[in-house]
Amino acid sequence: MTTDDPHTDPRLHLAAFLNAGPQGTVGWRHPDAGDGFLTAAHYTRIARVLEGAGFDMAFVPDSLAVPRSLGDSFDPAVTWGTGTPRLDPIPVITLMAAATEHLGVAATVSTGYQEPFHVARGMATLDHLVGGRAGWNVVTSFQDAEAQNFGQDRLPDRQTRYDRAEEFLEVTARLWDSWADDAIVADKESGVFGRPDRVRAVEHRGERFAVRGPLSVPRPPQGYPVIIQAGASPAGRDFAARWADVIFCSHESLESAVAFYTDVKSRAAAHGRDPDQLKVLPAATTVVGTDLKDALAKHEAFTELVHPEAGLSRLAYHVNVDLTRYDLDGPLPSLEEVGVEGHYREVVEFAEREKLSVREIGRWYGARTEGNMIGSAADIADTMEQWLDAGAADGFMIQATHVPAAFEEFADHVVPELRRRGLVRTAYTGGTLRDNLGLTRPARGEWRHRARPAAGGRP
Amino acid sequence: MTTDDPHTDPRLHLAAFLNAGPQGTVGWRHPDAGDGFLTAAHYTRIARVLEGAGFDMAFVPDSLAVPRSLGDSFDPAVTWGTGTPRLDPIPVITLMAAATEHLGVAATVSTGYQEPFHVARGMATLDHLVGGRAGWNVVTSFQDAEAQNFGQDRLPDRQTRYDRAEEFLEVTARLWDSWADDAIVADKESGVFGRPDRVRAVEHRGERFAVRGPLSVPRPPQGYPVIIQAGASPAGRDFAARWADVIFCSHESLESAVAFYTDVKSRAAAHGRDPDQLKVLPAATTVVGTDLKDALAKHEAFTELVHPEAGLSRLAYHVNVDLTRYDLDGPLPSLEEVGVEGHYREVVEFAEREKLSVREIGRWYGARTEGNMIGSAADIADTMEQWLDAGAADGFMIQATHVPAAFEEFADHVVPELRRRGLVRTAYTGGTLRDNLGLTRPARGEWRHRARPAAGGRP
Ligand SMILES: Cc1cc2nc3c(=O)[nH]c(=O)nc-3n(C[C@H](O)[C@H](O)[C@H](O)COP(=O)(O)O)c2cc1C
Ligand SMILES: Cc1cc2nc3c(=O)[nH]c(=O)nc-3n(C[C@H](O)[C@H](O)[C@H](O)COP(=O)(O)O)c2cc1C
Repeated sequence: MTTDDPHTDPRLHLAAFLNAGPQGTVGWRHPDAGDGFLTAAHYTRIARVLEGAGFDMAFVPDSLAVPRSLGDSFDPAVTWGTGTPRLDPIPVITLMAAATEHLGVAATVSTGYQEPFHVARGMATLDHLVGGRAGWNVVTSFQDAEAQNFGQDRLPDRQTRYDRAEEFLEVTARLWDSWADDAIVADKESGVFGRPDRVRAVEHRGERFAVRGPLSVPRPPQGYPVIIQAGASPAGRDFAARWADVIFCSHESLESAVAFYTDVKSRAAAHGRDPDQLKVLPAATTVVGTDLKDALAKHEAFTELVHPEAGLSRLAYHVNVDLTRYDLDGPLPSLEEVGVEGHYREVVEFAEREKLSVREIGRWYGARTEGNMIGSAADIADTMEQWLDAGAADGFMIQATHVPAAFEEFADHVVPELRRRGLVRTAYTGGTLRDNLGLTRPARGEWRHRARPAAGGRP
Repeated sequence: MTTDDPHTDPRLHLAAFLNAGPQGTVGWRHPDAGDGFLTAAHYTRIARVLEGAGFDMAFVPDSLAVPRSLGDSFDPAVTWGTGTPRLDPIPVITLMAAATEHLGVAATVSTGYQEPFHVARGMATLDHLVGGRAGWNVVTSFQDAEAQNFGQDRLPDRQTRYDRAEEFLEVTARLWDSWADDAIVADKESGVFGRPDRVRAVEHRGERFAVRGPLSVPRPPQGYPVIIQAGASPAGRDFAARWADVIFCSHESLESAVAFYTDVKSRAAAHGRDPDQLKVLPAATTVVGTDLKDALAKHEAFTELVHPEAGLSRLAYHVNVDLTRYDLDGPLPSLEEVGVEGHYREVVEFAEREKLSVREIGRWYGARTEGNMIGSAADIADTMEQWLDAGAADGFMIQATHVPAAFEEFADHVVPELRRRGLVRTAYTGGTLRDNLGLTRPARGEWRHRARPAAGGRP
């Protein structure tokens, strides 16, 4: 599906980050924010906006708990900054796909508290029903509160989580491969439904999972649904460099983005993959105005809506540490193992530079959005083009301050500018999400090339 | 929502039994069968047919394995009689709801290999997104092949399965109740999102599950999604009499249907429930012709399409015993504990009466459909009315020999006759699936009245 026409095979891939609930710290409270986050209409409206703007996909994050990040409270007045309530992403993206024809739809599903058979079957089902447009953001979860909804007292450590994710992905991919692409015959005349020699068991007996297989669903249209990952630690990057088709990341500077991009692409190459088959999409929160001044005023108005406690709650949620255990007027504690390492590293640097207390950094964090791009449509397009040219990105994960309005503004103002520059598609050419992203379809057996080389016991 | 107008609050409730895959033993092979069972269009087309005919709901069964019922083979040529492939029912019913406005949609989810938090969240999400039209068929699974996809060698015994289901339902219902109906305020002006005192944890620590809660999703529009159950054993009936809003069953005679109906209604009453709040829907496979002769010819043509081995495979699947271990030309073995007891009891009686071998009974079983009603539209309506009058049913679970055609024939010919008699609605009046079925909305805390009285440790 790859052609040299930049209008159809874009240089700049666009994904949209959309909570299955209120959007971010301030999202719900913005005067232009929709309040339909429990309704289908809310999500299908956004899906149509994104498809009109040529997005590759919509992306829904997830969390398996009401965070108890601050003084062990689940007070929604405090925790809404962390994304509460939060719907199951699967029905949400199913509806978004049903309302569109080309838009890819991706959901976050944690490997921590699921069974490979359920996830393999659910994703394969979705990929069939939406004609090859499904994606899976693989996370290992990062909160104790999530573990506590599944029989555990605490989040397992990072290595344990990635070991489980590794075995999980291997089993899942083998389940997708358990039916050959041509296993179904369905010949009414002869009565032959399928070819027995083209379906095989999995017979996996590993450390954590024993799965006999085969899957009860034929091989997905995309071979494997598009696999997305957002780990920032060395273990996370290694995992992503092998398994992921798309990496989602967040950077405060062009320099750190270039370093990350270079690192994960070379990791992919070291595993024998074509680095171009791994797309890197940094987060970009866009605030577009008629000019820079207008955009800054919009951003300022947004910042003023932040509830003072919500920021601290959100920070505590991301680091998986109850910060009320520390002196709120003292400096940020140095924490050994935190939930989302990438976020905390940036925060510590900022707090030291600015000499902020826990309370102050919390306030700042509440209004913080990832990868801010604030300005006119041309300013934003300039920045995006600069990141592409510098080798920092294959596109962006657009984060909206409030929905659907901020996506509509991006679609109405920034996308036309990006299209004028030949960076974003004007029409879809391929049929699947892999086609949108310029990714090849994995052959049956591809899991062998993605699994951790050290793992034993493979046929 | 209950009125005395039979045209709006029907005496006869209609559910449609629809596989998320090829329909039944012969379904895919029928000349009029659609072959789109992996596409969204197939399911949305059927959903619209059902809504046009005033059905209360579509119902999707499930199985978590390719059955290995015959000589441990997963040969699809043999196992297709058991429903292979089989998609995850949740995305399927999400799409069916998106294509309709009033039709309820119910999916089967086993308590055997899931976590209460996932199921509570998924069902609550669906109920919100489809405006209170979601239902859950609670099963405990019945095949070793399913257990083997989830780290177990064999299906646990029945009592263990129902004990797990009991704890599962209790936790799930408490998660649905963890948010009061008025917990969300979402006042943009004041910035108050929710009322902390209207959200509470679950803090469940039971034999099998430890779930802290609260759920991350507000209370479902229906309070609890409609709960459906199909257990036939005494343990299953007791469970259903307490938890279920709808019981799905299968009977070969009016007498056994009346006995079952009387039994489960009186069990419900014994638990302090209004027996009218538990709807009993026996299976009815309808084959409608211009007259009885025409309908019988249609049924005969259908029967001739059965693959000779598929019936034995289907029987082995239902009883969870590999029948190739026995002499195929000898009598049916007497089996201690079988998967679906209800099915086997009927088969044994029939085989003894007719003196059939295992092979012969297998052939018969392949063409067997549940609760056959064969005849003209008036004949079928007569039978249905007779069952209602006799106290055997509150409606029927319509099983189609092939789809979408058999549902279309039912909608075009039988439904008009039932409407003429004032038995089936001509328009929907209520907004939710509970309204369709004439069921009240459970108040917060209702789980206390449904849980097994012996269970301890309740607040
Ligand atoms: C931009 C970004 C988005 C993320 N989205 C989610 C998410 O939706 N759900 C989740 O559980 N974790 C999410 N994470 C966490 C990561 O998936 C990962 O678990 C975390 O960064 C810890 O992995 P690491 O130890 O490799 O850094 C996100 C992380 C980043 C940086
Ligand atoms: C008409 C009918 C339909 C059923 N549908 C399913 C199903 O979709 N999935 C499933 O796992 N079990 C299904 N079952 C099995 C029952 O849910 C139940 O697990 C089984 O009958 C054993 O329960 P019992 O021991 O109480 O009879 C069905 C049973 C009957 C009678």
